[in-house]
Amino acid sequence: MAEFYRVEPMLLSEVCSLILQNHGVPAIDADVVAKSLVDADLRGVNSHGVVRLSVYLKRLANGVIKSRPSMTVVKETGSTAVLDGGYGLGQVVSQQAINLLIEKATHSALSAVAVKRSNHFGASAYWASQLIEKDMIGISVSNVEPLMPPPGGTAARVGNNPISIAVPALLERPVILDMATSTVPLGKIVNAQSKGQPIPLGWAVDKNGKPTTSPADVINGGFLFPVGGPKGYGLAIIIEILTSLLSGGAVGSEIKSLYQDLEHPNDISHFFMAIRVDGFMNAKLFKQSVDNYIRYVKMTPLAESAKTIYMPGEIEMLNKEQNLSTGIMLPASVAEELATFINSANIDARFSEQLLADPQN
Amino acid sequence: MAEFYRVEPMLLSEVCSLILQNHGVPAIDADVVAKSLVDADLRGVNSHGVVRLSVYLKRLANGVIKSRPSMTVVKETGSTAVLDGGYGLGQVVSQQAINLLIEKATHSALSAVAVKRSNHFGASAYWASQLIEKDMIGISVSNVEPLMPPPGGTAARVGNNPISIAVPALLERPVILDMATSTVPLGKIVNAQSKGQPIPLGWAVDKNGKPTTSPADVINGGFLFPVGGPKGYGLAIIIEILTSLLSGGAVGSEIKSLYQDLEHPNDISHFFMAIRVDGFMNAKLFKQSVDNYIRYVKMTPLAESAKTIYMPGEIEMLNKEQNLSTGIMLPASVAEELATFINSANIDARFSEQLLADPQN
Repeated sequence: MAEFYRVEPMLLSEVCSLILQNHGVPAIDADVVAKSLVDADLRGVNSHGVVRLSVYLKRLANGVIKSRPSMTVVKETGSTAVLDGGYGLGQVVSQQAINLLIEKATHSALSAVAVKRSNHFGASAYWASQLIEKDMIGISVSNVEPLMPPPGGTAARVGNNPISIAVPALLERPVILDMATSTVPLGKIVNAQSKGQPIPLGWAVDKNGKPTTSPADVINGGFLFPVGGPKGYGLAIIIEILTSLLSGGAVGSEIKSLYQDLEHPNDISHFFMAIRVDGFMNAKLFKQSVDNYIRYVKMTPLAESAKTIYMPGEIEMLNKEQNLSTGIMLPASVAEELATFINSANIDARFSEQLLADPQN
Repeated sequence: MAEFYRVEPMLLSEVCSLILQNHGVPAIDADVVAKSLVDADLRGVNSHGVVRLSVYLKRLANGVIKSRPSMTVVKETGSTAVLDGGYGLGQVVSQQAINLLIEKATHSALSAVAVKRSNHFGASAYWASQLIEKDMIGISVSNVEPLMPPPGGTAARVGNNPISIAVPALLERPVILDMATSTVPLGKIVNAQSKGQPIPLGWAVDKNGKPTTSPADVINGGFLFPVGGPKGYGLAIIIEILTSLLSGGAVGSEIKSLYQDLEHPNDISHFFMAIRVDGFMNAKLFKQSVDNYIRYVKMTPLAESAKTIYMPGEIEMLNKEQNLSTGIMLPASVAEELATFINSANIDARFSEQLLADPQN
């Protein structure tokens, strides 16, 4: 049994797009979603990669994600807009928002788009990063369903809402922060449990809101905990306000779990912002100063345990450079599920053969 | 010996302003600084209150803070500006930046001002909060001198750069996040040492970049550590970029310690942003939705150890409401130092008598 299949990124993207098209998504939109998922796999962020396609398809089939959403701008100024995503695929809605953001940025050094009635948009960095090619600093945040209690609480009230900020550099790689506001994602706690290991204090609380080192206490009714307690909690609250409150979108328990509730729209909100560097200084000079700053930080003397200093997002960009040349190592379960989708649809069977052509252990 | 003096906030503000005026600061600017420091004491954030006046005075005397700075806008668009603070008092420069921000906000739903060649600006929340009265979301960030190593490093390369975001509410108190990007401030580690207590892992590293539970290891050549490791580090890096790189200000080791180097300008940079709520939706509706959201979060069922759920900034606002009616409990050393400043200057001695009129234990 193969543990992985090595897959060429272009092939993977084409396969995902064809499967989405087979579920009624127009080709141009299917390509957007496929590209964003494959980009996450390229960057080694497999949790946000093509593994997500399966739940998108179920939601499309149930009609709680619209394959042809009616997206409308419900409020607009020269520099701002609110986009109603019409429950389209989160990536389709987000790409529309980014395009609108870039259009507004031609007239204004600052622009922002708040988005309601959307769905899971993949990795936040994918959206913020699109701005750096235009010499802008990109900001991308999203809410998710409540997953964390406030400090002192025993029920989930706020998502581990992610934030990404991307900054262009000149010769160095860009700086791309992408973080959730929980200490860790749930996957890390599940991993600890499967290895029979305790988790550090601060990762999570049990069902009574008490800090715990037991993965089982978390998985059985416990909760993720905000990074740094009140700090991560505060950031998550602010993101909730920027996304759903500024857009008039769903709040708190109105937001449904991507995996636990397949009968209702996810009802996610996003907020994107572009900061044109030339609103503040010459873009080339700025990017040179980013290069210098990156070099200054990376030259920090190393602790014994460390091999190098990484800038935010650098590990993911190194993964991408590697995987672009050697292919993506896709977990066998994910690749085989994709092959099933191909075979059960009206898609050329050679795609599933190619997908499973290079098993790895 | 008194441990505290109970001081009426208006008196404290007047005293601070008179002392600054005695050091050559124009009355209007001295009032700005005094008001910002007293506000921090009112909010219970004594670390950023009038205790800071002493080092400001030394820096004014040394000429590394300019009492009458030449502040110039070096770059400007309809929605953005870069302000050169001319090494003025951080509060004087920041108030100028906020005024500029609000002026730009009359024409644009988004506005931002990056500031270079400034000094310590007190509590970040003081600046972000000024925007909420105008139905704007306020963002205020600043760099400070390098205090934290990147994960894996053994030298300070990035400040524990603070971020504040303030959001208006209608009937409820506003939401005011104000956090540094280190797990804790140095003061907490000094406190643990004075009590002979260990510190939790994650607060700090020793001089070799190794996580430590010993306060002594931190104070003797160790470092504060970013909250959540790569997360706080990433946020601190982004703040450095928004403040000093966008403004063309001092970077890294060019930024001098407020207390350790009195011979050179602090050379701090800031970045302020205003988001006009009506760029996205009716301001009153938005503020109502903030009220509803606050109530939703505050009604979270409580853990056994907790008495209430606090929103970001709520504890500080409760402190302020209390202290406005009962007076500020000023540590004796701080009050007595202020009395010394009064007595050594050409200021009516009745001020120092009033300042020390109500000793407390």
